[in-house]
Amino acid sequence: MGISLGANQYGKAENRVVRIYRDSARHEIVDLNVSTSLRGDFAAAHIDGNQVDVLPTDTQKNTAFAYAKQHGVTSPEDYAIALGRHFLDATPKATGAQIRVEQYPWDRIPAGPNGHDHAFVRRGGATRTTVVTVRGRGAEQRVWVVSGLQDLVVLKSTGSEFKGFLKDEYTTLNETDDRILATSLVARWRYEGTAVDWNKTYDAVQSTLLETFATTYSRALQETLYLMGTRVLETTGDVAEIRFSAPNKHHFLVDLAPFGLENNGEVFIAADRPYGLIEAAVTRDDASDADDVWSSVTSFI
Amino acid sequence: MGISLGANQYGKAENRVVRIYRDSARHEIVDLNVSTSLRGDFAAAHIDGNQVDVLPTDTQKNTAFAYAKQHGVTSPEDYAIALGRHFLDATPKATGAQIRVEQYPWDRIPAGPNGHDHAFVRRGGATRTTVVTVRGRGAEQRVWVVSGLQDLVVLKSTGSEFKGFLKDEYTTLNETDDRILATSLVARWRYEGTAVDWNKTYDAVQSTLLETFATTYSRALQETLYLMGTRVLETTGDVAEIRFSAPNKHHFLVDLAPFGLENNGEVFIAADRPYGLIEAAVTRDDASDADDVWSSVTSFI
Amino acid sequence: MGISLGANQYGKAENRVVRIYRDSARHEIVDLNVSTSLRGDFAAAHIDGNQVDVLPTDTQKNTAFAYAKQHGVTSPEDYAIALGRHFLDATPKATGAQIRVEQYPWDRIPAGPNGHDHAFVRRGGATRTTVVTVRGRGAEQRVWVVSGLQDLVVLKSTGSEFKGFLKDEYTTLNETDDRILATSLVARWRYEGTAVDWNKTYDAVQSTLLETFATTYSRALQETLYLMGTRVLETTGDVAEIRFSAPNKHHFLVDLAPFGLENNGEVFIAADRPYGLIEAAVTRDDASDADDVWSSVTSFI
Amino acid sequence: MGISLGANQYGKAENRVVRIYRDSARHEIVDLNVSTSLRGDFAAAHIDGNQVDVLPTDTQKNTAFAYAKQHGVTSPEDYAIALGRHFLDATPKATGAQIRVEQYPWDRIPAGPNGHDHAFVRRGGATRTTVVTVRGRGAEQRVWVVSGLQDLVVLKSTGSEFKGFLKDEYTTLNETDDRILATSLVARWRYEGTAVDWNKTYDAVQSTLLETFATTYSRALQETLYLMGTRVLETTGDVAEIRFSAPNKHHFLVDLAPFGLENNGEVFIAADRPYGLIEAAVTRDDASDADDVWSSVTSFI
Repeated sequence: MGISLGANQYGKAENRVVRIYRDSARHEIVDLNVSTSLRGDFAAAHIDGNQVDVLPTDTQKNTAFAYAKQHGVTSPEDYAIALGRHFLDATPKATGAQIRVEQYPWDRIPAGPNGHDHAFVRRGGATRTTVVTVRGRGAEQRVWVVSGLQDLVVLKSTGSEFKGFLKDEYTTLNETDDRILATSLVARWRYEGTAVDWNKTYDAVQSTLLETFATTYSRALQETLYLMGTRVLETTGDVAEIRFSAPNKHHFLVDLAPFGLENNGEVFIAADRPYGLIEAAVTRDDASDADDVWSSVTSFI
Repeated sequence: MGISLGANQYGKAENRVVRIYRDSARHEIVDLNVSTSLRGDFAAAHIDGNQVDVLPTDTQKNTAFAYAKQHGVTSPEDYAIALGRHFLDATPKATGAQIRVEQYPWDRIPAGPNGHDHAFVRRGGATRTTVVTVRGRGAEQRVWVVSGLQDLVVLKSTGSEFKGFLKDEYTTLNETDDRILATSLVARWRYEGTAVDWNKTYDAVQSTLLETFATTYSRALQETLYLMGTRVLETTGDVAEIRFSAPNKHHFLVDLAPFGLENNGEVFIAADRPYGLIEAAVTRDDASDADDVWSSVTSFI
Repeated sequence: MGISLGANQYGKAENRVVRIYRDSARHEIVDLNVSTSLRGDFAAAHIDGNQVDVLPTDTQKNTAFAYAKQHGVTSPEDYAIALGRHFLDATPKATGAQIRVEQYPWDRIPAGPNGHDHAFVRRGGATRTTVVTVRGRGAEQRVWVVSGLQDLVVLKSTGSEFKGFLKDEYTTLNETDDRILATSLVARWRYEGTAVDWNKTYDAVQSTLLETFATTYSRALQETLYLMGTRVLETTGDVAEIRFSAPNKHHFLVDLAPFGLENNGEVFIAADRPYGLIEAAVTRDDASDADDVWSSVTSFI
Repeated sequence: MGISLGANQYGKAENRVVRIYRDSARHEIVDLNVSTSLRGDFAAAHIDGNQVDVLPTDTQKNTAFAYAKQHGVTSPEDYAIALGRHFLDATPKATGAQIRVEQYPWDRIPAGPNGHDHAFVRRGGATRTTVVTVRGRGAEQRVWVVSGLQDLVVLKSTGSEFKGFLKDEYTTLNETDDRILATSLVARWRYEGTAVDWNKTYDAVQSTLLETFATTYSRALQETLYLMGTRVLETTGDVAEIRFSAPNKHHFLVDLAPFGLENNGEVFIAADRPYGLIEAAVTRDDASDADDVWSSVTSFI
């Protein structure tokens, strides 16, 4: 009976790279969490303990910081593509590199007409993400860019129902015409190619997601996600497909009747667990081949 | 040898109260985390297991939700004062009540000229807090209001030095004329009395903290905190004293010399642990008596 | 240009099910975190807002609790298989169900010769996991069971080296003959079939992982993982393949030379971020078909 | 109107010190999280930005690591006392030093008759803590040692009631003769003096807490805490007083009646928030003076 090494990858996770642009008195800040990994033929390291083909994770870390200066960070996507290509060049046995970046947004502190030159306050709200996968070399090299956002917490205090659902012997839920709908949205969208205005497109997608959530009636979180995805694809030509993971953050109406009080959608308890979890993809019919990139975007196991 | 019951308190922690104001089509949301506790003569519960004087924590929870409707939540301070007074009335053996509230800020989703009527996005950034302590009954009753904010993450990319410090045989730190200064600020300030415009004053204090951080040169985080506190007391008559807890979130300059690159304050690694922790109070000389409220504001142990 | 609904799933996540067996004075506790989800043809819910085919997540929650009584929980795997099969029966449009369970271990409090009958202390250490996927109906129905553990934190204070690695212009790491090797292990293994003694096999795999980590010399974390996986497959016939995700929790030797002290592997700083992240699979050559179960074991995006 | 600097302290928090004893082939591991802080006359640093009296937090960090070698860590208490005394010597303007330590327990990996010589698995369960406060110099110097444990999660599946409580118009809770009682205990106890066998006493106190929780009937969590505290003081002469903070981790009986199932204390949902929070002190009547140490043990604000 034989036993073999299967899929494997290695890298340095969560390099907290902070890049300050200070070419003028008006500084810019780019605040990143960068993870890099390599796949390829690293059987010797696993089976024989031979590291000769292994570019250390420490070197990957050094490179992530060096590239913040050497290449610069005009966008997480541009920076990640450069890093991924470099790691393939630097590691002959690697067949693919994946660079994951989270970017934390900062605002200028309001002081003076245009905000302060070098003092910032972290914005909170959504974190911007990208996962860049580079595979192959030379003319065969392909690049997939899957960008997104996470922790975008949104809530509608009306304009949401849930009724007409399937019932069985374990069903006790009442139908409702008016409920709070809230989620902490994770979205990822795959770009067609790399000729994209990364920052402008990110802002446009985020705005479309927010506006669609706000302005459409919801008969289920599923419908709302599908509408949000459809609207992104309709308005953003560079996006091939988009995926959502959306916890249904339940807000339960509190029964105030025992205290002689009416509660017409005014007082809720925000629950922690359990929560609904709704996940869906919306895709352009003529989208290019994603290969297995989506499964590699998620964690290894 | 005698053994006695010492200090004790009990209550319901982290009630996630969400109050929607929907008197018009333009809804308002107030999103709170409410903890209540009672102190007093509860020896029977501890020593004899007799609950006759104990208002259950479940009842405290019910009251927190009922009061969100019955009293309303124009501000966390006003709501907490009402709750605290009620609990003293409801519990004859209680001598004091403490109500702790965290408020999470939400913005309207940008849709239409003034934002959407009933769709919201969580702002992130600082959480607003208050701790209200009510003690005594009738004419003897006193109320202390300690409000604040937490998780206000701020950073200056220049305008900060650290030098001229005490050295001993374990000192290896180099002096610096230019460094990143960053913290995740926790501030609490004690109000004089309760005739305060709570929401307006909160906004004013937050603005003063941000602006002072941004516009003053820093020779140490200690100096910056003292300046921030002084400026709040100078501009806000209702504040008797203010306290800060400020982790010095280190951003270390990365050594890029091995790669032939200069790093003139451009590339940093944001470190997790350890971190400096600077804590200080700034107080008005004629401030009223705080009794032992500050020690009870922190956790019991 | 067409736009279509792609992959989708929905369910109730993180039901905290606690099952007490109290048929005799000697109680047993089973403490679970249960997440359920369904895949299938739910286009109507997404596109038309029609819930007629949707078994609510609230019903899934009810069923998870009811089954803890009705079916019982002899092991997380047996319970999850029953739940998964039930959900397919209850939801005609579903083509697959996935049940994820985390089990938190408890010990009896030491009181009396065999531990206390009904008082327990949570053990800490590794959490046991399982992900059961059920697809199809009747004779076509297939079941995949992927069990595992997470948060198994292990450390070797010697017997680990890292040298002979690939170097490039960004490499500064020194080779080492003796270092601390530490990880917080996540492992998942796929069983062949369901005729398995789930609890006994779980204990055997955990013991094999620990013993192999302890007793083998490490020339890299990759080699150690491969050895651990190989040993599990050699000793546990029911396991078809095993996968690891192992952060290299760096312990850096502290430079005490400035203080006139030697540090021969005695004083380390445990670092938080960044960390190496090593991931690998070890598989039996004659393992059965896994279909796409591994990619669905990870989160949706 | 004058404005003054009030209470203040500064230090380095969360130094992750790992000390390996490797004098023989059988290694020992001591895994600590160490925070140090100084109080005293540091007005110049705050008001004038003058650091001449300030021993940098970076130096405090260096010292924490150096002392792990130079002084050693036979117990967190002994190590913390040495560090605290040193910092007072090193910092003329300091009047007090406080050292906080958390210790994470590890077990030897079972391999061979007595466990492996140099391979360890983190135990989980309770974390051991100490907070040592040193004040004054020479003959006036006083030392307070407040040790404890946190995250000790315990549960009784029967032997707990809650009834006979005070009721008002907001009370809806039913009385119960049989419920689950569970908490994640935080305890801190103050020692008399420093002539204590620190490790032996810690083990004895933890055993007494567990055994008392297990073997006594509970009419409320308050009564259980008081019994636990009393028993510790009766059995451990070195302990002057003990304090508890105990979240009542609610396990709610799930209503299975809609599904035709009985639930006689067998199926519970473990709730997250809100939770009861019960806090109490038990003290020896002839205990020495604690000064204000308890309030300084908690966080500054």
